[in-house]
Amino acid sequence: MSFKKITLIACAALAAVSITAPALADGDGEIKYRKAVMKSIGGHMGAMAGILKSETANKANLAVHAQGMAALSNIAGSVFPKGSDFGETEALPVIWEKPDEFAKAAKMFQGAAANLEKASMSGDMAQFGQAFGELGKTCKNCHENFREKKQQ
Amino acid sequence: MSFKKITLIACAALAAVSITAPALADGDGEIKYRKAVMKSIGGHMGAMAGILKSETANKANLAVHAQGMAALSNIAGSVFPKGSDFGETEALPVIWEKPDEFAKAAKMFQGAAANLEKASMSGDMAQFGQAFGELGKTCKNCHENFREKKQQ
Repeated sequence: MSFKKITLIACAALAAVSITAPALADGDGEIKYRKAVMKSIGGHMGAMAGILKSETANKANLAVHAQGMAALSNIAGSVFPKGSDFGETEALPVIWEKPDEFAKAAKMFQGAAANLEKASMSGDMAQFGQAFGELGKTCKNCHENFREKKQQ
Repeated sequence: MSFKKITLIACAALAAVSITAPALADGDGEIKYRKAVMKSIGGHMGAMAGILKSETANKANLAVHAQGMAALSNIAGSVFPKGSDFGETEALPVIWEKPDEFAKAAKMFQGAAANLEKASMSGDMAQFGQAFGELGKTCKNCHENFREKKQQ
């Protein structure tokens, strides 16, 4: 481990954060892991959007995606460990500076994903569509308030 | 639906295929859906690789990823419906020309993912690592034999 990395971790450890995450293994590695989790989440969201727009006939797969989303939402809080705010990441410092606000946003995401999973079992596409919209809002909430704005 | 699209679907319908997939909704839409499913699969694979390489301390999330992979492997056969072999896809015609061979490869993927899920519950990282390697081989098998080679 480089001196720079050790220093960064030590600095990060000084910040008072309460995000539910294990000890940091490796800053860059944690960022890479976070991106992989977000990739899987994005895949499920895209897949469900396609089903809702009837772009695919795979409506039968809806529950798999909704369950997958719910499971991933439950680990979303663990992918922002202390010290993973440096390097190739768009995660904003506010995540670690205002951990309670971030935890609240993460909880909203979890709740919406759990609701989506329930809706997927109802077979009612209108209900599912509404739950999907609500989930989308919680994604947008984090991406707007806790992620660097994309360059136009 | 355009005449071209109808013609393509009609042509595809003539091919004798037995991939487990619903009727085609929309060629481009099905390709988009397939890519979303593969994105989610890729995210889980990357996440598990990060855990195995100790790049992340999130070992506790292993089962979520393994279960997610197993669930996605079970729908993998449904993302190659007839008619989704045209357009922006790297899927090779051999998928629809030799459906039995492709179905066999898809079954191997499912079996390996189910095995990985079991291994994730054992808590034995060596067993998990081996199961992950075996799963990787089934990914590679399809990507080498049923997907267009990436440009060097």
